[in-house]
Amino acid sequence: MRNLNEDTITQAVLARHANATDARLKTVMTSLVQHLHEFAREVKLTEEEWVAGIEFLTAVGHITDDKRQEFILLSDTLGLSTLVTAMNHRKPDACTEATVFGPFFVEGAPGYELGDDIANGAKGDPCFVRGTVRGVDGTPIGGAVMEVWQADAEGFYDVQYAGDEAHRGRGRIISAPDGSFHFRSILAEAYPIPHDGPVGRMLSALGRHPWRPAHLHFMIKAEGYETLVTHVFRDGDQYLDSDAVFGVRSSLIAQWVRHEPGPTPDGGASSQPFYTLDFDFVLNPAA
Amino acid sequence: MRNLNEDTITQAVLARHANATDARLKTVMTSLVQHLHEFAREVKLTEEEWVAGIEFLTAVGHITDDKRQEFILLSDTLGLSTLVTAMNHRKPDACTEATVFGPFFVEGAPGYELGDDIANGAKGDPCFVRGTVRGVDGTPIGGAVMEVWQADAEGFYDVQYAGDEAHRGRGRIISAPDGSFHFRSILAEAYPIPHDGPVGRMLSALGRHPWRPAHLHFMIKAEGYETLVTHVFRDGDQYLDSDAVFGVRSSLIAQWVRHEPGPTPDGGASSQPFYTLDFDFVLNPAA
Repeated sequence: MRNLNEDTITQAVLARHANATDARLKTVMTSLVQHLHEFAREVKLTEEEWVAGIEFLTAVGHITDDKRQEFILLSDTLGLSTLVTAMNHRKPDACTEATVFGPFFVEGAPGYELGDDIANGAKGDPCFVRGTVRGVDGTPIGGAVMEVWQADAEGFYDVQYAGDEAHRGRGRIISAPDGSFHFRSILAEAYPIPHDGPVGRMLSALGRHPWRPAHLHFMIKAEGYETLVTHVFRDGDQYLDSDAVFGVRSSLIAQWVRHEPGPTPDGGASSQPFYTLDFDFVLNPAA
Repeated sequence: MRNLNEDTITQAVLARHANATDARLKTVMTSLVQHLHEFAREVKLTEEEWVAGIEFLTAVGHITDDKRQEFILLSDTLGLSTLVTAMNHRKPDACTEATVFGPFFVEGAPGYELGDDIANGAKGDPCFVRGTVRGVDGTPIGGAVMEVWQADAEGFYDVQYAGDEAHRGRGRIISAPDGSFHFRSILAEAYPIPHDGPVGRMLSALGRHPWRPAHLHFMIKAEGYETLVTHVFRDGDQYLDSDAVFGVRSSLIAQWVRHEPGPTPDGGASSQPFYTLDFDFVLNPAA
């Protein structure tokens, strides 16, 4: 435990964990320490780079608050989130695929009735969303709790507007007994992930753009089924093949159909063009 | 770039860095992404564990401020700091060894004259420190700027006392033309690293104690020489073989000699027991 060098430090750290009582924690930390050290040895990390790393992580921590989660953004942009999602959601082919959670979910979004407008003033072309929630055997799933969230026409989620505490483009609806759901919102548009912070600087230094293809977030919970966290992506988007967070899955791409001004699916009429999106979800039974 | 899974995500992320213009950054990030992903695959990281990791890093970021650097503490306790120090300071055997920088250095500590008391009110038994700074060929190094810092008898550095802005147990002295130096301070004592935050919880979960053996920090800068960041450790300390941050080197262990009340090396007299420490530093020529 004295005179440790680059060849002996790793085993010394692991030896210090001999008394850990949580076997899983020990397994995770053993691998983490080995890979952290191997990374530093492999690139022969300099002291200046170590300082830069400490400063980067400090900046990520300091920009993170209850509305901005820069560590999730970091995990997303380094592909870790997609890796973890993929490993933990191997499902039958018939099920709706999962994708990354992202940093913009908010607990306690308002509940809406089927048919309501969850935009709540968020800017964008009207969009009517409808579909069904079913089990893999086709059973309709009524009472599924569906959290929906999305960015507005400016590319911002509600929580990105300083001083505005209203929930916009975000809400919770419950599927009908026949598994159907419908609600009104706004058109999903491509947007850049927040790139005015350390993760944005990292992307820029790596020659990467910060854009995500247009999408609508869903988290669907129903008793007896595995919770589904996913997006529906808008077909035709120019960023479908270069999503900044590696989340696109072909099976999640759908048509947002444009309609000229006129009658809308909710029985009203729109004086501006509007869109419709039809998408059905298939949940995996709980393990 | 669509439908990425745990087997294809790593290459997809690396491909996204094709346009990075900084070759070194690309090398570092390639290794970092590969090891981050391999860690997650190796332990089959669950989503709950991923969330725990995000929350842990967020807590590390939020407790870090201009006086507390929890990311350095994390690097230190995981052995990364010792690894980086060891890789970057291979020196001739005759040179004083380097060790970890630690999280408690402060820019702008007060300058003192040789012989002054840098304790500035910090609690502890008086200690008189003296030695020389020389080059590896024996040349005395006058004018070396020596930053010294240490914890007090309670185990705290000055910056750990809320609301007290005074520099205590911390100062900058300049070696005399013959390379000699001497100053007064207080006895170094073993202390626990700050363990009331996320790093402390990590150590506790891993069955590790947070203690460091007693030591005095030095950073010595002299023109034409490699900057030396090191500690002098107190012989006989019970934590010399289990330093929480893996920094102990045998060549840096020295005797703090106890003296009964009476005449002190500065020509005065002490009514309480006091200590003396003699330690000589040998600097490596700059590359």
